[in-house]
Amino acid sequence: MKITCQSPVNIAVIKYWGKENVELNLPTNGSISVTLSMEHIKTITCVESNEQIKQDSLVLNGELVEIPGRMKLVIDKMRNIAIRCGNRQIKYKSESPLESPADPRHFITIKSRNTFPTAAGLASSASGYSCLVYCLSLLYHLDAYLTRTELSEFARLGSGSSCRSLFPGLVEWHLGDSSSTSVADSICDSWEDLDILVCIVKSEKKKVGSTVGMQQTVKSSALFKHRVEGMPAKLETMKRAIIAKDFETFANLTMADSNQFHAVCLDTFPPIIYLNEDSRWFIEFVHEYNRMAGETAVAYTFDAGPNPVLYMRSKYTGDVVRLLKQLVDVTKFKSIRDFNECVTIVNELGENIPKTNIPVEIIHAKCGAGPSLCKEEGI
Amino acid sequence: MKITCQSPVNIAVIKYWGKENVELNLPTNGSISVTLSMEHIKTITCVESNEQIKQDSLVLNGELVEIPGRMKLVIDKMRNIAIRCGNRQIKYKSESPLESPADPRHFITIKSRNTFPTAAGLASSASGYSCLVYCLSLLYHLDAYLTRTELSEFARLGSGSSCRSLFPGLVEWHLGDSSSTSVADSICDSWEDLDILVCIVKSEKKKVGSTVGMQQTVKSSALFKHRVEGMPAKLETMKRAIIAKDFETFANLTMADSNQFHAVCLDTFPPIIYLNEDSRWFIEFVHEYNRMAGETAVAYTFDAGPNPVLYMRSKYTGDVVRLLKQLVDVTKFKSIRDFNECVTIVNELGENIPKTNIPVEIIHAKCGAGPSLCKEEGI
Repeated sequence: MKITCQSPVNIAVIKYWGKENVELNLPTNGSISVTLSMEHIKTITCVESNEQIKQDSLVLNGELVEIPGRMKLVIDKMRNIAIRCGNRQIKYKSESPLESPADPRHFITIKSRNTFPTAAGLASSASGYSCLVYCLSLLYHLDAYLTRTELSEFARLGSGSSCRSLFPGLVEWHLGDSSSTSVADSICDSWEDLDILVCIVKSEKKKVGSTVGMQQTVKSSALFKHRVEGMPAKLETMKRAIIAKDFETFANLTMADSNQFHAVCLDTFPPIIYLNEDSRWFIEFVHEYNRMAGETAVAYTFDAGPNPVLYMRSKYTGDVVRLLKQLVDVTKFKSIRDFNECVTIVNELGENIPKTNIPVEIIHAKCGAGPSLCKEEGI
Repeated sequence: MKITCQSPVNIAVIKYWGKENVELNLPTNGSISVTLSMEHIKTITCVESNEQIKQDSLVLNGELVEIPGRMKLVIDKMRNIAIRCGNRQIKYKSESPLESPADPRHFITIKSRNTFPTAAGLASSASGYSCLVYCLSLLYHLDAYLTRTELSEFARLGSGSSCRSLFPGLVEWHLGDSSSTSVADSICDSWEDLDILVCIVKSEKKKVGSTVGMQQTVKSSALFKHRVEGMPAKLETMKRAIIAKDFETFANLTMADSNQFHAVCLDTFPPIIYLNEDSRWFIEFVHEYNRMAGETAVAYTFDAGPNPVLYMRSKYTGDVVRLLKQLVDVTKFKSIRDFNECVTIVNELGENIPKTNIPVEIIHAKCGAGPSLCKEEGI
């Protein structure tokens, strides 16, 4: 019995940084993200289960690797639930293509592949764990007993922010006050007018990983607790902006929160510095573009790495791409739409935004769907 | 009648960033700095006054420039005090070489020169205004009526941090609650065991000047007010460390405060980013060096620019210089001591600190004296 699914990456607009409980991946604050459409960036995972399989195994991007401790935990939790659910009344209609659930006492083979470099600074663990949890939920028909929000607890146990990748559109990971309440939920399913450009300036492996980095911040940053204190109000404002499709507020909060996240990283001791001069170029580009456009047309956000993700109203996307092609060395542009007949909106930028030779790979996405079944090809 | 003086640069270890009152240069928090010895970095100013001079004028680094508004204010304030003091009882012995004070109703010619690039990120306004105020105090014998701390108010009106350059050693600029109480004072006159390496990685002019930048921070950074709240305790800890010559605490607080200052810059909207990849290299170098040395041997601090200033216990200076010469492109090294027979302490650093081709000019200094009379040569 075999299930193959795809699951999206999500990019936070209000960032998760800091664990209240390391073992359970309970965060110090709630967070909000955008789920990216899967044309160019996603994880595909195939889980197979049958009597013949002699032990659990994981093939990641074509390489047989040991199953990480957290993944074992997630698999065991879901198996245990599956065993217990065996006798219960079905609550929902399962989306599983399997007529009956797999036997959770059998071993499984997991094959998983990301369509982007693992260390590109994109949250491969988010798409990865959400994909695994979604696969297992269909394999064991757990979605007949548990809501998507309830399933998101398992993803969170694997990798905090992956709970958000189980939902389409704009998603909140609630702070909660326990493992079962610190779960994800949809704010809205889509934002048609939103375009996303993931700009990869460097694929170098992070010097300080998120898990270690955020614990150092919690421990040593004097400013961090004030960031946390301000979070409930910020999350509320952001949710209202998203529901109202108020791009201006959404964009400004997104940029300010990214800056604040990197500020508390810098306030960590020793400091954690993820932004580099390429990042700074993009920050200045966006502010200058908005100034010339006469409104907040574009927003940037940076996760734990130097790569900017740009959010923009779709009428600006062609114009932004055209300018980027003029100003930086766009080595690859993976689009999902044709921009050839775009109207020029901002003719040129001020001299503070010089032409540079930064090599940038740009991946275009929209606000996308959550995990779904897919074909096994090429894993 | 003519007075020529030299005045030092000071480098804050607890930073001034944010004005409570822009007109009066009253800060949002107190600050502490180290006064640098003047072998290689200083301002030399010559002020001349006589009946023949037909108007006030300023020659800055050889160029006739308009006298800035704030400088006019400082000059006028000091002239007015001089006029009023004319009839009063002398309180202290003046250090002036002039037997009688110049007539404050005469115009003056100011010639001033910095021995370092104005835009190097070093506080040229600090040495500049302190030098001018010191010159005028001797020209008008104001030091017969006012203490150095009282004189520091005039320097502050010109450029906030310049009030600290009127004192030797380690200096506090008190927050105060009025123009006459927000003044500077010595914490201790010297720290024999302290060496300072000013590392100039770039002389490019700042994109965001301090005055504009700090007002943007006050206005837009959510974290800034929490930095200010934490200041009184931090200043107390720092003062105690300085008095006890506790380098460990001094160094860690210095680094943490520099990081926090740059954190609130990054939390500003739009963000202000002074640190670049060269800065980051030095930050990582220092933490790695300290790790290898087994104690906090070196500290970094960055003002509103990318240039690191390193403080260290003097037994490490030769070793740090030797390593820097191996690892970066030291284009110039202006020393005040011979390091040829230095003992190697840290043999080599981990692979996280790669050899790079960053061009760096290094200027060596000690904790130094305040302003003093000097010869006019070469202004």
